[in-house]
Parts: sequence; C-alpha cells; structure tokens
Amino acid sequence: TSSGVFLLQMGWGDLGAFGEPSKETPNLDQMAAEGMLFLDFYTANPLCSPSRAALLTGRLPVRNGFYTTNGHARNAYTPQDIVGGIPDSELLLPELLKKAGYTNKIIGKWHLGHRPQFHPLRHGFDEWFGSPNCHFGPYDSRERPNIPVYRDWEMIGRYYEDFKIDLKTGEANLTQLYLQEALDFISKQQASQQPFFLYWAIDATHAPVYASKQFLGTSQRGLYGDAVREIDDSVGRILKHLQQLGISENTFVFFTSDNGAALISAPRQGGSNGPFLCGKQTTFEGGMREPAIAWWPGHIPAGGVSHQLGSVMDLFSTSLSLAGLEPPRDRQIDGIDLLPVILQGKLIDRPIFYYRGNELMAVRAGLYKAHYWTWSNSWEEHGKGIDFCPGQSVAGVTTHTQEEHTYLPLLFHLGRDPGEKYPL
Amino acid sequence: TSSGVFLLQMGWGDLGAFGEPSKETPNLDQMAAEGMLFLDFYTANPLCSPSRAALLTGRLPVRNGFYTTNGHARNAYTPQDIVGGIPDSELLLPELLKKAGYTNKIIGKWHLGHRPQFHPLRHGFDEWFGSPNCHFGPYDSRERPNIPVYRDWEMIGRYYEDFKIDLKTGEANLTQLYLQEALDFISKQQASQQPFFLYWAIDATHAPVYASKQFLGTSQRGLYGDAVREIDDSVGRILKHLQQLGISENTFVFFTSDNGAALISAPRQGGSNGPFLCGKQTTFEGGMREPAIAWWPGHIPAGGVSHQLGSVMDLFSTSLSLAGLEPPRDRQIDGIDLLPVILQGKLIDRPIFYYRGNELMAVRAGLYKAHYWTWSNSWEEHGKGIDFCPGQSVAGVTTHTQEEHTYLPLLFHLGRDPGEKYPL
Repeated sequence: TSSGVFLLQMGWGDLGAFGEPSKETPNLDQMAAEGMLFLDFYTANPLCSPSRAALLTGRLPVRNGFYTTNGHARNAYTPQDIVGGIPDSELLLPELLKKAGYTNKIIGKWHLGHRPQFHPLRHGFDEWFGSPNCHFGPYDSRERPNIPVYRDWEMIGRYYEDFKIDLKTGEANLTQLYLQEALDFISKQQASQQPFFLYWAIDATHAPVYASKQFLGTSQRGLYGDAVREIDDSVGRILKHLQQLGISENTFVFFTSDNGAALISAPRQGGSNGPFLCGKQTTFEGGMREPAIAWWPGHIPAGGVSHQLGSVMDLFSTSLSLAGLEPPRDRQIDGIDLLPVILQGKLIDRPIFYYRGNELMAVRAGLYKAHYWTWSNSWEEHGKGIDFCPGQSVAGVTTHTQEEHTYLPLLFHLGRDPGEKYPL
Repeated sequence: TSSGVFLLQMGWGDLGAFGEPSKETPNLDQMAAEGMLFLDFYTANPLCSPSRAALLTGRLPVRNGFYTTNGHARNAYTPQDIVGGIPDSELLLPELLKKAGYTNKIIGKWHLGHRPQFHPLRHGFDEWFGSPNCHFGPYDSRERPNIPVYRDWEMIGRYYEDFKIDLKTGEANLTQLYLQEALDFISKQQASQQPFFLYWAIDATHAPVYASKQFLGTSQRGLYGDAVREIDDSVGRILKHLQQLGISENTFVFFTSDNGAALISAPRQGGSNGPFLCGKQTTFEGGMREPAIAWWPGHIPAGGVSHQLGSVMDLFSTSLSLAGLEPPRDRQIDGIDLLPVILQGKLIDRPIFYYRGNELMAVRAGLYKAHYWTWSNSWEEHGKGIDFCPGQSVAGVTTHTQEEHTYLPLLFHLGRDPGEKYPL
C-alpha cells in the first residue's frame, strides 16, 4: 500500500469541515466525508521545522535534535538554528520504506537542513522538487541569496528570480507546479506498479502567502483564502487522479498541518484556529491541534470520526505498518500505528506532549490538559506588535512572561472547555 | 406544505457541522448533509424574547414593540419588560397560516408575554404545550411562583413542582415530553391530512441547563453537551418520524437559534460561538450569527450551502410562501421569502441590522459590517464577573462603555475577519 501525506500550514478552523464560516474547501470536505476526520490530532511542535522532523522520524523533537539550542522554551527552526539539520543517526520514514521497495518523493519544503549533508536524497528520498526552506524573500542575491529550488540533486533556480512570487499581487504559480509534480509522480508509479511514499509539503499558506492567477480574488477570505482554495483544488485533483488510475484503494492518504495557523500574519497572511486559543509558536490548542483527515477508499468507512489522540509522528508508524515494516527497535519511537484506530475503530490510550523548544509546556491525557508552563510571547515582542493570540486574553494563561506551574499544573478539561478559558 | 421550525438557544459553534470539536450532533449534521446549511444567518436581536417576536411577526423588534423601554441600548425581554407582551395589532405567522387551513402548535417557550391577553392561543396557535417564560427557578411559590406549564388554555403545573428539574444533577425529562408532543402532533396531522405549522421552541440549553437521565454524562462537553445531544437526538427522531409517515417531502423544516450561545453561563451552562466574537446580549457575530439548516427532502438538494444573508424573520415570509399566502401589505415586513434562495440558489441583496434594545448598533451589507456603536457590557457588570466575551478582548471593539462611531463607523470585512478582530 502506498502512502501520501499532505502536510500544509493550515489552522484547524481553515477547513469547511472544521467550521470555517466561508466553507470554501469542497474537496477537503469531500475527502473528510469519504474518509475519517481526526478531531484530536496534534503536531509535535508549534513550528514547521521540528514538526516536520518529528513526522519523518516518528520521534519528538527533543529526541531527534530539533529543539532549541539557546533560550529557555524558545522555538528553534533547526538544530543550531539555521545551519543545522537532520543528523545521519536519525532513521527517516523514506529510508525505512525503501526496504519494502517504495519510491519516495518530497514535493515542497524540506526544512530539515539546507547544507549538503542534510539533502533529502541523502535521507531516503528518491526524488525532490522543492526548496530546503520557506520562500521568504525577496533578498538581494549578492548580500543574501534567495531560497533555492531543487529538482533532485540539482539546484534549478531560486524563488523570486526563477520562480516568481509577486508579493504585491500575491501571484505565484508554484502550487500548480507542485500539483503537476504530484500527478506526474503518481502516474509514473502507477505505470511501473511500484509502491510509493509521496510527501506533498507545500507552503502556499505560509507567509508570504501566494496563489495562482486563476485563484486570486476567488475567496471571501482574501489572499490567504485564495491560497487555501488552490490547495483544496489541488488535493481534490490528486485524489481524483488516484481514483482515475485505479489505485485509490491501494493508497493511504493523510491530510494535516505542521502547526496551527500563524495568527501574527492574520488576517491577510494567516488563517484560523477556529474556537481554539492562540496560534503558531504556542502550546495552546490553537498552536498544536491540527485539522486531520485519513482517506483510503474501500478500507476506511466514509464519514468516520475519531477522537483518538493522534500526532504527526503517528504517520511514521502508520506508513511503516502499511508497508508491512516494523519501526526501528534501537531507539524510542513516539508515534503509534493508527491502523487499528482507522480500520477497527479502536482508541489507544496515549498522552500528547506539548513542547516549546526543549521545554515540556503541557501534557494532554484523555480530555484533561495540564499546563506546566504558560507563555504566549515576551512583553518585548508583544510591545512590537507581535501577537500570537490576537483578540484573545485569558488571565494567568496567555501570559507574557514564562510562568511556571510545575507544582500545581494549570488544568483544563478540553471537552467542556476546548478554548482553554476556564482553568479548573 | 407544512412547516416546522426548531428554535433553540445554541451557538454557531455548538454543532459538529459548524465545527464543534467534539462533533456530538450526528442528527443535525445529517440534517445539514441532506439539506442546506446557511452560513450567514442571523437572529433579529441577541436575546430570546425579541428574536422570537421577530420570527413570529416577520418584523424587527423596534417595529413589533419588543425593544427596550428604559436605558440606552439595553436589551429588554418584553415590552415594559416582564409584564408586557405581543400587541394584538401584530399579525403572527400562525394567525395568517390559519387562512390556509393550517393547524398551528407551539411546543416549549412562548416568551411573548405571560398575561392572559398574550396567550399563544389568542395569537394564532391552536395548541400549546410549554411555558410562557424560561424555566428559571426554583422559586419559593408563596413569595414568587414557579413558571407555569400549559397544555393549551390550561395551566397543568409548574416547573420544579410538577415538572421536575434537579439543578444538582441537571436531570429533567422535559425534552422527552416536548419530543413526544411533537411526534404525537405530527402523527395526528398526518392522519387528518391537514397542513401544520409546528414551532418546537424548547430551551434545554438555556441556563439552568438540563437533560434526561439517559443523556446525562454522555457528552465530552459536560451538562451543556448532554442537553445538546438530547436535542440532537430529538431532532433526528422528529425528522425520521416525518419520513416514516411519508410526509417529509411535504414538510419544510428549519433549524436555528434565537441568539448566540450565552457565554456568561459557559462552560457548564453555556455553549460555543465557534470563531466568532462574544456571545448572547451583544451585537458582535457571536451574539447574532446562528447555526441554520433548511431541510426538505425531494426539494432541497442534499449538501447545499448558502451564503444568503438570512434572518429568523425570513421564516415568517418563507412559511407564508410555502402556504401560498402573501405577507400582510398594511405594515412593514422585514423578513424575505427564502424559497428562491433554497430552491433556485439565488442570492438576494439585503442588509442585516444588529439591534440592542432600540439602538441600531451595526449593519452588515455583503461581507462588510459597520459598527455604529460598540459595547459589550458595563464596567459595573463586568466588575461583578459578568463577561459577555470571556477570553476575548479586542481593543476599541469589545468596549465596556457605549462607544459611538456614527460619524466614522468601525468597519470589518467578515470574510477575511469573521472574528471581528481587525477593524479596517
């Protein structure tokens, strides 16, 4: 069975199926209606890079090295910040899937290190079309180069120079390129009858937000909504392609997000975390609870809903299980195999850990969440207008200093109070 | 064609179909999947009584008399507050439907006046099972009597005395009584082949919240969730009953709410307004945007979604239209006939007015909303712990004094910013 993982930066509240009031994601809503919604699914860190490392290793960032290297509870993009990357000692999902004859492709943002030793093709992927980092820029290429775009080993150009992004209009056709790559890869694999792992990790909804011309101005939600609509359309096309090629029943597909919507970029460049507290960078539900949909026609009953506490790390163990492989036994794996949940409706007892950098901020067990530390961001940052919780303020919870509660954890019941407004 | 209106006090975010994270409303979600979701549907006032008057008269509270009688921008339950009621000069929907041979029944809370001249059977209803007011109490019946329960003209008992509500456990079987009344009425009408208007206006989710024994403890959301589950189950049974009797294709059914969830009662006694700002009593979206579902098998295409700006007042005009009647011409009617929207997918240009008492606080036209006045509640109330916007605070918007913006209205784009956090 092949696996496909759609990993976006979208908030819980960005999908119609999860209550976005404009309801502009018909394809994702259809995916949910045909598959299973996970309502209690989490990323492993409220920031892109460590959560991507966690997905591909099945391990918490504090184990795989993607945690802060300075400053308490600081979120870090990569080890040693921007020069580090995924250690050779880590076993990535695509490396393991190779043993089962899989062809592995990453489309989009790698984010596990941009130096040569961290190249995705050194870490199990067979193909790559995308970039090592976010499409930040444009930069002056003499002082600081723009982010490169790779096809496999070769750098084929740079964002803004060879791959245009018009920040004024928000126009860029990158999602269409990434879509075509996915369709072509799937066609090739179907023709060769080889199992595959496709990791479609594009970042159109990451600031600076962009969309193709045909989607610009089509959303009630502005540019961010245009980008969401284009992603939604792309997901629909990819799923339809699998069906038309007759391989949808042999392909397990999962859609989720690497962190909550970035509220510092809202409303033009950031999305919605629905009824949850705060956003990206925080360990409140808005920072780490993600939209999540499993789709596998003929296996997953349509319209399913699961309250299993899930994690992006589970996609590691689940994809291995689908390939008939066991997770490595020489190290701690934090992901669990979700197939018993998906196929037999089981609920597996497991906690969710909420880290910021190297600091365990909170733990969820069942419907209870205990905060050992609370912090939104510093007064200094907040004073500069950087707000991780715009319009939200819960006394003693969305604190602007790091508040310790390890002796008497701040407890919430997420069933009665999903918005973390009423400490018990 | 018969009409059924379910009118509850539930928030936009209380239904799974609208993004409630526990997703415990399978029957309402199914109703939405089989019918049409209205995503931009409003009540006429953020308080029960005036919005019920607006629904039944098709007119804004400032026209039908249900507005404040003292205190600027004060929400008033009834004219002259608790002693007033619906004037004889108002024409109510059931009065008009009689001309088309309808039998009209109200089950639940009337709320348009408790004195004899305001009795629902004097205002067009043929049958009543329910109470004139909310089930507040228990009261010492010597000093202040408990709220009475009527069957038609006859008072058959009182809440807490004859109709038990256990505030300690939250147990009361009232929703089951109200469900059975609905099923029996529908059976009787089907047997006599008479068209009917059923107004199922129960208030199990209004504080003090209750649920029947079989639903207690069944929700992740606590007692409020138990009440929602019981309502959801009841709605499912009523719709199934219509189908089993073979009259679902002749019965137009609409589900909505009389105001946003009462956040002052949350989390144990109050619900969720999803991503919207504040709750009941306010003219922010959380106070007035409502969950809304139209259901009419064989007429409404399944899975429909409408962005029509709709109002509870439209149920007046739509129900008349279904009965082949014209709205009265001797007075201003604020509701519009939604049938062209529902059956032909039309969008009708019309504004939404947000009143608090007699004060026009805000207007929505298209995706823009202009606030002429902002106010959550007074500092005095707020100091006593009464909070209409718990955990939410938007500078200059959720003000604790009545702030006038009539010269330069505070403008929001509800597509890009449904949470009213970013004034333009």
